Amino acid sequence: MDLILQGDERLDYLLAESLRIIQSPSVFSFSLDAVLLARFASIPLRKGHIIDLCTGNGVIPLFLSARTHAKITGIELQERLYDMATRSVVYNNLQDQINIVHGDVKEADKLMDNVMCDTVTCNPPYFLAHENSERNQNKHYTIARHEVCLSLEEAIIAASKLLKQGGKAAFVHRPGRLVDIITLMRKHRLEVKRIQFVYPKEGKEANILLIEAIKDGKPDVKILPPLYVYDHNGEYTAPIKEMLYGE
Amino acid sequence: MDLILQGDERLDYLLAESLRIIQSPSVFSFSLDAVLLARFASIPLRKGHIIDLCTGNGVIPLFLSARTHAKITGIELQERLYDMATRSVVYNNLQDQINIVHGDVKEADKLMDNVMCDTVTCNPPYFLAHENSERNQNKHYTIARHEVCLSLEEAIIAASKLLKQGGKAAFVHRPGRLVDIITLMRKHRLEVKRIQFVYPKEGKEANILLIEAIKDGKPDVKILPPLYVYDHNGEYTAPIKEMLYGE
Repeated sequence: MDLILQGDERLDYLLAESLRIIQSPSVFSFSLDAVLLARFASIPLRKGHIIDLCTGNGVIPLFLSARTHAKITGIELQERLYDMATRSVVYNNLQDQINIVHGDVKEADKLMDNVMCDTVTCNPPYFLAHENSERNQNKHYTIARHEVCLSLEEAIIAASKLLKQGGKAAFVHRPGRLVDIITLMRKHRLEVKRIQFVYPKEGKEANILLIEAIKDGKPDVKILPPLYVYDHNGEYTAPIKEMLYGE
Repeated sequence: MDLILQGDERLDYLLAESLRIIQSPSVFSFSLDAVLLARFASIPLRKGHIIDLCTGNGVIPLFLSARTHAKITGIELQERLYDMATRSVVYNNLQDQINIVHGDVKEADKLMDNVMCDTVTCNPPYFLAHENSERNQNKHYTIARHEVCLSLEEAIIAASKLLKQGGKAAFVHRPGRLVDIITLMRKHRLEVKRIQFVYPKEGKEANILLIEAIKDGKPDVKILPPLYVYDHNGEYTAPIKEMLYGE
């Protein structure tokens, strides 16, 4: 296999030893948020098409490939990340199932030739363009984390355009943006149907929001049981271990 | 004291034995939802003015009176409930703090002489006018539970009009209406800031939504730790016991 790790890239494990992914501390490493989204999203299991917006190093398509036989496309703006994702797909021999596309999510409907897909997943930039939080890092991190190249509304518009009627859009975001995400989704024909809040541990406020909407769905939301990341001993809880290690 | 219980009315205890409330199985009995809202709402503690919309038999003003010295007004459309609430206030000797007003919430700003208050609480009708759920009961229950005399948007408009800038609106509702309540609050200058979901027990979906907004507040929501009503033995959890019995 013609895999070459570049610079400070590492080949990390996903789901115990069944998949591997190229990461780089100076460019992009996936977060728990992406793993949570890959598990939370309602996806077709046998056939159909899933599109992952802002795919980064391809972590969500890789995780999803363990759950479904559907075709998966990841779209990434940054060439360096697109390249890492593509090499990870090849390393895992998943090029028949996963396609990584280099391009701007704002043009996703054109990039995808106006395809109508079943599910869109998206782990978008969390921070507003003007927010300083973590903006001291390099350009790769700034684009991945701040709304400098893609606003939340642009990501939601892209998801809505890609989905067929009844198709599902699953996003992960900060709970602080709940009102924005809900109002923007309704504005663009995505009716929120399932929400799960993730808490760092019992007794704390939620720090991750998982939210799924159906295109042209009827209003009615379910709030799933809460998910806790750490137990009282500071160790991952059983559901989180299962997501991360597939055990 | 000139208290007369009418028909099938009972004099029930609130907060162990410190308060009592007139209830009637055929007209109105308060629910856990009202108790949860009275505990959840951010209220001024020493002075100021709190208005409770759709006050029913006055359960929320009565509970709030144990937490604050502020003036409390309850507004109720149904004359029979208004009358029960008024008699409970007198029985508890709280007529200097609590005022029950007979009138339509849609006219609340006029009823209250355009007062600007600090907090509005509201346990509105939960079900849409056309929903059949529980509509087999009598007129008192239908008006209290279904949006036949007051829609969710009308309740939110009333709250917004009554509040001063920076004042707080706290509502309890069904989680299924989360998207409606959030979009309507933002539409009427109430920016959601705190949400707590209440689950019947661990592992179940939430069945009660507590939500608080600030008039003209800045966007940013906190999702409080979840609250469970029953433990694994089917008994009230400690936080619920504390709310109900003040222990």
